[in-house]
Amino acid sequence: MAEVSGGQALPLAERRLRLGIVGGGQGSFIGKVHARGARLSNRWDLVAGALSSRPQVAQESGRAWLLADDRIYTDYRVMAEREAARPDGIDAVAITTPNNSHHAIACAFMEKGIDVISDKPLTTSLADALDLVRRQKETGLVFGVTYAYAASAMVRQARQMIRDGALGALQQVHVEYFQEWALTPLKDAGAGAQWRVDPSIVGPTFTTGDIGTHCHHLGAFVCGRPITAVRAEFHTLGPPKALEDTAFMHVRYEDGIPGTIMISQVAPGAHCGLRIRVFGDKASLEWNQEEPEILHFRRFNEPARVLTRGEGAGIGVHAARFVHMPRGHPEALSDAWGNLYEEFAIAVEARRLGRNLPAGLLEYPTVVDGALGVKLIEAALASSQSGGQWADCTLSM
Amino acid sequence: MAEVSGGQALPLAERRLRLGIVGGGQGSFIGKVHARGARLSNRWDLVAGALSSRPQVAQESGRAWLLADDRIYTDYRVMAEREAARPDGIDAVAITTPNNSHHAIACAFMEKGIDVISDKPLTTSLADALDLVRRQKETGLVFGVTYAYAASAMVRQARQMIRDGALGALQQVHVEYFQEWALTPLKDAGAGAQWRVDPSIVGPTFTTGDIGTHCHHLGAFVCGRPITAVRAEFHTLGPPKALEDTAFMHVRYEDGIPGTIMISQVAPGAHCGLRIRVFGDKASLEWNQEEPEILHFRRFNEPARVLTRGEGAGIGVHAARFVHMPRGHPEALSDAWGNLYEEFAIAVEARRLGRNLPAGLLEYPTVVDGALGVKLIEAALASSQSGGQWADCTLSM
Amino acid sequence: MAEVSGGQALPLAERRLRLGIVGGGQGSFIGKVHARGARLSNRWDLVAGALSSRPQVAQESGRAWLLADDRIYTDYRVMAEREAARPDGIDAVAITTPNNSHHAIACAFMEKGIDVISDKPLTTSLADALDLVRRQKETGLVFGVTYAYAASAMVRQARQMIRDGALGALQQVHVEYFQEWALTPLKDAGAGAQWRVDPSIVGPTFTTGDIGTHCHHLGAFVCGRPITAVRAEFHTLGPPKALEDTAFMHVRYEDGIPGTIMISQVAPGAHCGLRIRVFGDKASLEWNQEEPEILHFRRFNEPARVLTRGEGAGIGVHAARFVHMPRGHPEALSDAWGNLYEEFAIAVEARRLGRNLPAGLLEYPTVVDGALGVKLIEAALASSQSGGQWADCTLSM
Amino acid sequence: MAEVSGGQALPLAERRLRLGIVGGGQGSFIGKVHARGARLSNRWDLVAGALSSRPQVAQESGRAWLLADDRIYTDYRVMAEREAARPDGIDAVAITTPNNSHHAIACAFMEKGIDVISDKPLTTSLADALDLVRRQKETGLVFGVTYAYAASAMVRQARQMIRDGALGALQQVHVEYFQEWALTPLKDAGAGAQWRVDPSIVGPTFTTGDIGTHCHHLGAFVCGRPITAVRAEFHTLGPPKALEDTAFMHVRYEDGIPGTIMISQVAPGAHCGLRIRVFGDKASLEWNQEEPEILHFRRFNEPARVLTRGEGAGIGVHAARFVHMPRGHPEALSDAWGNLYEEFAIAVEARRLGRNLPAGLLEYPTVVDGALGVKLIEAALASSQSGGQWADCTLSM
Repeated sequence: MAEVSGGQALPLAERRLRLGIVGGGQGSFIGKVHARGARLSNRWDLVAGALSSRPQVAQESGRAWLLADDRIYTDYRVMAEREAARPDGIDAVAITTPNNSHHAIACAFMEKGIDVISDKPLTTSLADALDLVRRQKETGLVFGVTYAYAASAMVRQARQMIRDGALGALQQVHVEYFQEWALTPLKDAGAGAQWRVDPSIVGPTFTTGDIGTHCHHLGAFVCGRPITAVRAEFHTLGPPKALEDTAFMHVRYEDGIPGTIMISQVAPGAHCGLRIRVFGDKASLEWNQEEPEILHFRRFNEPARVLTRGEGAGIGVHAARFVHMPRGHPEALSDAWGNLYEEFAIAVEARRLGRNLPAGLLEYPTVVDGALGVKLIEAALASSQSGGQWADCTLSM
Repeated sequence: MAEVSGGQALPLAERRLRLGIVGGGQGSFIGKVHARGARLSNRWDLVAGALSSRPQVAQESGRAWLLADDRIYTDYRVMAEREAARPDGIDAVAITTPNNSHHAIACAFMEKGIDVISDKPLTTSLADALDLVRRQKETGLVFGVTYAYAASAMVRQARQMIRDGALGALQQVHVEYFQEWALTPLKDAGAGAQWRVDPSIVGPTFTTGDIGTHCHHLGAFVCGRPITAVRAEFHTLGPPKALEDTAFMHVRYEDGIPGTIMISQVAPGAHCGLRIRVFGDKASLEWNQEEPEILHFRRFNEPARVLTRGEGAGIGVHAARFVHMPRGHPEALSDAWGNLYEEFAIAVEARRLGRNLPAGLLEYPTVVDGALGVKLIEAALASSQSGGQWADCTLSM
Repeated sequence: MAEVSGGQALPLAERRLRLGIVGGGQGSFIGKVHARGARLSNRWDLVAGALSSRPQVAQESGRAWLLADDRIYTDYRVMAEREAARPDGIDAVAITTPNNSHHAIACAFMEKGIDVISDKPLTTSLADALDLVRRQKETGLVFGVTYAYAASAMVRQARQMIRDGALGALQQVHVEYFQEWALTPLKDAGAGAQWRVDPSIVGPTFTTGDIGTHCHHLGAFVCGRPITAVRAEFHTLGPPKALEDTAFMHVRYEDGIPGTIMISQVAPGAHCGLRIRVFGDKASLEWNQEEPEILHFRRFNEPARVLTRGEGAGIGVHAARFVHMPRGHPEALSDAWGNLYEEFAIAVEARRLGRNLPAGLLEYPTVVDGALGVKLIEAALASSQSGGQWADCTLSM
Repeated sequence: MAEVSGGQALPLAERRLRLGIVGGGQGSFIGKVHARGARLSNRWDLVAGALSSRPQVAQESGRAWLLADDRIYTDYRVMAEREAARPDGIDAVAITTPNNSHHAIACAFMEKGIDVISDKPLTTSLADALDLVRRQKETGLVFGVTYAYAASAMVRQARQMIRDGALGALQQVHVEYFQEWALTPLKDAGAGAQWRVDPSIVGPTFTTGDIGTHCHHLGAFVCGRPITAVRAEFHTLGPPKALEDTAFMHVRYEDGIPGTIMISQVAPGAHCGLRIRVFGDKASLEWNQEEPEILHFRRFNEPARVLTRGEGAGIGVHAARFVHMPRGHPEALSDAWGNLYEEFAIAVEARRLGRNLPAGLLEYPTVVDGALGVKLIEAALASSQSGGQWADCTLSM
């Protein structure tokens, strides 16, 4: 197997950074996941939060997380104002709210010079997404987007192997993500389910924005090249709703490499069935996020190889620096979020210290990746509405 | 799980039937597979063959199979003639030659009143396929087509469960078939590889005819309803050739149920990766032909269930009658071919004895299934050439 | 991986041999399995049978298998007599009856000069087993025993890899076989279950004879060296019965290599869970008979490799000559029985023709392997009764 | 499936507790794992450490973890002294040093009234272990032992299902743990490998103490009953060393339930292959720590069920309270350590506040579990030395 080289260890922290969070109160699932990642990285203290706009929920959630009373907020604007004014104010904010508030919240904190970590999809419109791209470029602030699967050690390994030519010339790429939860009738579903199918909150798509963007980012990240065009077919197969809950897409990666994306959130029996298969002319790779420790590497007419996270045994430096425990001590999604928050911290610290980091050291998703995801949403929707015409997926900035 | 009912045991044989074979000489893979299925069923004696048009190959192959010298032929027309004239002539012929000869060979034996078992794809043109449908209808002869995967016990189980409503209303169907063998440069490949990419022999497609038709038949068979439309994108990703080696399709099943088909024969690491996933609004089924004993049955928000071939444990009668060994004694592709040849024998015997079989007893693929496969080939090709327009997949007869 | 060499193709048949069977009538499972293997090999015609001592069962079973009326017997002694007297009499007999009749039946046919294929365990006493060894030596007849798992292509591959040093020096060997069927209360169980727990029919053990002997043979066969000593602990955990249904053993292979055997037939959820793991000082192998196509090969600190049946891709000649279909077209237990019956046929034909076969060409289990199994039964029983003392497992002949 | 009931949610924290750590400096693997668990639980701030007795390593390690300079110690006695004297001193200490120092370190902190969390095996002699049991009883301090696998959500689920009778009467229990790392020649191995095979540091066994104790604890924990006797066979199969690297054991659980334990650290291809299989008279459970999200539940003659971590779908309250992310978002070993540190925190907080917790709320391993592990070590060693006599595994206190 191609030997892997050129990696650098991640730099150590000078101090633990201070993180604030918007959203994530009781009933939220993703806020808790952010917090676990931040803790695991040992790079962050979560010290402030506007966990909910409802005062009681904000209070109870903030106390459950052991926030100081004076740093439990109910309005993110107040939070941005006060935290910016404190000598021990937050270094960065994590935005974990429903989609339609991401843009305004990000703007509020960026205006105070605070770095931003945002959930995906980045915004509910491409215009908003491009606005954030522009603001980031102007301010030079760190702007990370939490496509967390890409921070799994074996995804980094896959990306490196492809970059190093282990598959030969890339030929086809298939990404799929199946879930079952949206089969729950809307009236029985929780708040998180309600807003995800409400166009006024979630934006113009449901499933394409929620999990299609993960497929889109993962495919491009692993293959090291963007998706340039899509043709899509949307379906609403589950309980009646205004938006699609299933989509099948054909895509083109740079250089015309063909691929597919299949997504559905009404697929009974599927939990978080995100799977990528990349075929070159010499070998293929397969990774399934529900078994994140395993990367299947299969060369033409050779026994299949099972690569596992750990040092040695064919694992390259980009994966190895995220090896926290030896092979066989399984890591999973919390660890991937920890990796992501570690990279965010290194970026934030470097910006604050004016430190230059080597090119390619950090591979966390940025505001541009977030904007590309929003572009995919709009392109896929347009394609589906046109009966499956090809739609461009690139940003013209 | 819905209890399964209404099955009947398969009738016993009166005598072992006599089978002839065309094709299958040394170097052929599929002829041997037919023969193994016929033997395993204990319903057939393989007594005659035109195993090759090259006399020496025909002789050597015939002797390797222990055929009598006077029943080793080099010309199928002579074979049809002589066998029809013998008192102990063959009851049926198995056609295992390259695609472009299926039609003529089938006609030669049908004209002699001999039942036909043909490889797929049935013919190289829809006109020829429809001609065989017409001839079969006129003669009343048995005409089976060897979509053998559909004779696997757990595929029968899947079909029955869907018919009995175990999945609720069907919502989406995904079938894929990945192989790697066509990555071999053509000059290094065997004869079977050579003709498969030669349009003058194989017909207008390579991969769509070779394995796409399996996906098409399996999807329709398991779901109990036809595919009515397709839109396809063909690619030639492997060694240069005149035909496609990869195709991605969107399809519609009857009642508008959406699905996909993905096929490639240049996917390194894939051997015979035929997999079907059917999602209803209550549950899903998944079957992978490389693990044919296992049927995954997953109800919404319940633990996944692993059904296995055998009697009891939720297995219905249609699968149970193909249970030759108890659960855990693995059966596989030879056994599936045995099942198929058992059904062919029952049909042939019934026709010869003028015996009426209960409707639905036998589920082997017929000449109409074969013609539907040829229709798919032409529709997918037309769609791909049109840039992905929907093309009709139904037969107008 | 060590390249594999020195294999020879198996010789072709001169004619199809004639097989008789004793036992295997309606209700028998194993008789049918023998018959399927014989058919699949294309080396045998099954032409005579004493399928049952009950005349009606014998008749019905014989007709179901399409035997000629005059070759359906109810007494194996009559069958031996008459078949020996016919010019077209059987070449060999397959003994598929309960254990306590194996010895007498084998003697009856050997006395007529007919080759023998016997189920395991060979006999119900070591004295009887050694008597058959002696008779075989005196007559020079072929005497095969149906440890069929050892005829699986990937088991042959494992044996060859170990012989060729792919694991380094062998260090430990673990074999287990778990089934669930004996949890069925005896009164609800079929005839096959009844006699298997009746000491007057089955001999001094239940599970040790039924599946422990498979573990014993498989371990020795794969490792290429005998088990020399055992220490055992018997348990009756399931429905009350006179014999053990579970046993745990420590064993020694030649050269003092340690190992374990674990067997139980009252393990809910287990079907035919026969699994072998062999560890050397460089690598390990693992094979599970429920997934017979796959051989896991794992070198120290390297990615695990998944070897699959087929030509190329690291598969040696001993496995390759049992490759009937290319990689990915799954073979399973019927195919293994076919392999076994192919080897039996070659041996029988060679004996009849006075033909010498190259040493090591055939690897089917012989009467000596059968006797070693009976020795294991007696040794394990003695050890368990002694509270776990080591007991010798070798034959002194 | 038996419905699960009677669980209570875990109480929220009043404040984050202060944790100190002894051991865990650069080159240590397990110290880092403790720290990740503590962070993930959000119940602890790691504020002090004697990470190494070598001053430079202690300094560098402490800074890498962002400890304050004045709380980086090189002597655990000084640390105990000073931390006990600080108003903001540590609430508990985590002992992550080699085995032979556990007892002294635990005593030093207990004498200062500081709660203890210790690695396993607890001590290098039973006398020391019983001394710690006595001291804990006298002081009433919290004393947890980090058998972390038992804090995996699906292990809790298995334990609850067995307690609730889902398997029927327990009948046999098999636990195995295979690793490969000790195949590394000692001269090439790291410090952690060196001391693990040095009897003066590790105690009287290598593998039995290192991973045998995990099997012992896991078996007893899942089954809800102690192992009362053992008979063992020790082997040194890998590179020469004074202690065993492989052991095979037969065990008895309370009420005479038989089982086995198999362990080896020289098994090429195995990483952390800890697997438990429990068979009752109605059903079985199987769990493999390398796939910690999955619990196989198999009822006699029913389709196997695959239970996964998450709420609903048959998961009981004891597992559900450790569900941090919905089903399909995989948790693994870091999360299990987080669960364990959450339970430790609740116990420590309750002791400090004089709060009574409901019986059975917490299930973390205690000093008594640690002592039982040491008893197993001594019993297994004695049994092996005696040629496999049964040895008692119970504590007489």
